[in-house]
Amino acid sequence: MPSTLSNYKDLNEKIATNKYSSLFILCDHNTNEHCVHHVLSQLETSLKIEILEIEAGEELKNIATCSEIWSILAEYGADKKSLIINVGGGVITDLGGFVATTFKRGIDFVNIPTSLLGMVDASFGGKNGVDLGNLKNQIGTICNPELVLIDTDFLETLPKNQLISGFAEMLKHGLICDLHYWKNCAAADINNIESIIKLIPRSIEIKNDIVIQDPTEKGIRKALNFGHTLGHAIESYFLETENSLLHGEAIAIGMVLESFISLQKGLLSGQSYQEIKHTFKSIYKFVDFTETDIESIITLLIHDKKNEYGTVQFALLDGIGKVRLNQLVENQIIKAAFDNYKID
Amino acid sequence: MPSTLSNYKDLNEKIATNKYSSLFILCDHNTNEHCVHHVLSQLETSLKIEILEIEAGEELKNIATCSEIWSILAEYGADKKSLIINVGGGVITDLGGFVATTFKRGIDFVNIPTSLLGMVDASFGGKNGVDLGNLKNQIGTICNPELVLIDTDFLETLPKNQLISGFAEMLKHGLICDLHYWKNCAAADINNIESIIKLIPRSIEIKNDIVIQDPTEKGIRKALNFGHTLGHAIESYFLETENSLLHGEAIAIGMVLESFISLQKGLLSGQSYQEIKHTFKSIYKFVDFTETDIESIITLLIHDKKNEYGTVQFALLDGIGKVRLNQLVENQIIKAAFDNYKID
Repeated sequence: MPSTLSNYKDLNEKIATNKYSSLFILCDHNTNEHCVHHVLSQLETSLKIEILEIEAGEELKNIATCSEIWSILAEYGADKKSLIINVGGGVITDLGGFVATTFKRGIDFVNIPTSLLGMVDASFGGKNGVDLGNLKNQIGTICNPELVLIDTDFLETLPKNQLISGFAEMLKHGLICDLHYWKNCAAADINNIESIIKLIPRSIEIKNDIVIQDPTEKGIRKALNFGHTLGHAIESYFLETENSLLHGEAIAIGMVLESFISLQKGLLSGQSYQEIKHTFKSIYKFVDFTETDIESIITLLIHDKKNEYGTVQFALLDGIGKVRLNQLVENQIIKAAFDNYKID
Repeated sequence: MPSTLSNYKDLNEKIATNKYSSLFILCDHNTNEHCVHHVLSQLETSLKIEILEIEAGEELKNIATCSEIWSILAEYGADKKSLIINVGGGVITDLGGFVATTFKRGIDFVNIPTSLLGMVDASFGGKNGVDLGNLKNQIGTICNPELVLIDTDFLETLPKNQLISGFAEMLKHGLICDLHYWKNCAAADINNIESIIKLIPRSIEIKNDIVIQDPTEKGIRKALNFGHTLGHAIESYFLETENSLLHGEAIAIGMVLESFISLQKGLLSGQSYQEIKHTFKSIYKFVDFTETDIESIITLLIHDKKNEYGTVQFALLDGIGKVRLNQLVENQIIKAAFDNYKID
């Protein structure tokens, strides 16, 4: 089994074939320290390479940061044949992809995800974007990177909580598409990095299959939103507080809640729900939502980018391994889901 | 001959067919006063319609204005099935198109150009975008509106200088593609609005033919850049000064300069050059460039969005009605073009 989807050889070939004029590496402080030197050591090119470092963190995934980068690109003479290489987690690849697809109406970009979340989710599928205030990914484009380079060596330096966060998307891929893969993920030891790495290729395969079928999310791609409708609202709600959650931590809770809703809708068995709830609660930290929290999170839902016609539509589980799309859910069931999440 | 490309009936049908959730009309102060009430009177829908008015002028065609509009859209509950109707000149359709194609990763938009420039050029072809400082259209996307509605009644209220500005693009369409049409445009009376209106459909046809062949400007679409390589640089240079030029005024000069370059490259006859220069100088205001102006404009050229590999490439005339793409031009020929522009 290869440890990469595309590798440095593919990247070097692409740089040579596409005759780029200059290269820009976008990174944050952490990936500049831990990953960029390794990427540079693997590049075989005589082109000028500029490193653009931004501060780490979701708080800077906004238009102001994009404006700074656009200005620097213009100042450094980036042109339509420049290539941007995004080296980082989901914030860097989401933001760097948006910067690239809008600079001079679109230049090429490559993603080198350094987090598990980036490898299995954020770095491919074509969704780019930034936040608008505390509304996540409100501004963005849909455009694929030229290449996604997977280098699992970067996972060795990743903090444990980041690894756990990314793992939530792998569990999701099992839940929405592949019962056998879900069982394997649920049985894996999150403390054993090699066992997690072995599960990465199937996760990428599942997501790729879905986004190729439906790049603009008119249909089946909505399955990937399982756990995200409530998960995004939870993540947004806590974003600027001391209780802020990592993306995977928020959608792990979202998946438990939306599994309960699936149960209430008669789509999921009680046994499957308990299995899902037990699996997530054994890995992810518990959040003790107050009534005010719950009310506010439901209010935030109406701003979620997946909504149409002002209604909240969910992708629910139709048994483990299948999804039922465009499900309307009453607020009282959402409240009941939060209540049930709290009890063991 | 129809006075519209698409009309209000087409728009009403689209609104009904696509089942939009809400409508937003983007306009500036002038078009809100002169045009929006007419558009509203023609719409047959029970959907909620919000009017978003921004200040008029190229100075506000920037990311800060986009951020304001994105925030207002979010505040007013715009969702993925909302429709933005841009009612205005090139600034409104360029900016409104960019706002729409990036809000929630892309919602539908319709352009209703109210200027001649918008009708024959800016409102269709799929190029959207905003300026970055004094660099024009550095940030943008390529995405077509659902529909372009041409209502030539709006030209009645258009200031004369705006009409002349738009007419430059019509002259360009003749020069790059159709000798006969060029002769008709050159012979038209700019003071007779009906004679100009009659020429609009062919101009739209020429542009449409080109952009359909090459939406992302890999080849033939570059022909539309004739006059714009130097024209954009001239427009950018004067943008924040008291001598600021309208787009058409700047590219009219650009076309004279680039025709001289075509002459120097042996692509255009002396007679054709004189005919072109005489035509533009009889309609457009003369700018007495200083040596400093010329040096600065050439410096700005390297930032022009059409450049690749740091070189300046021109689309030159290959006789009237044909274009030769990707032509490299030495700075001394550009300087000579400015010198020749000054003499009769």
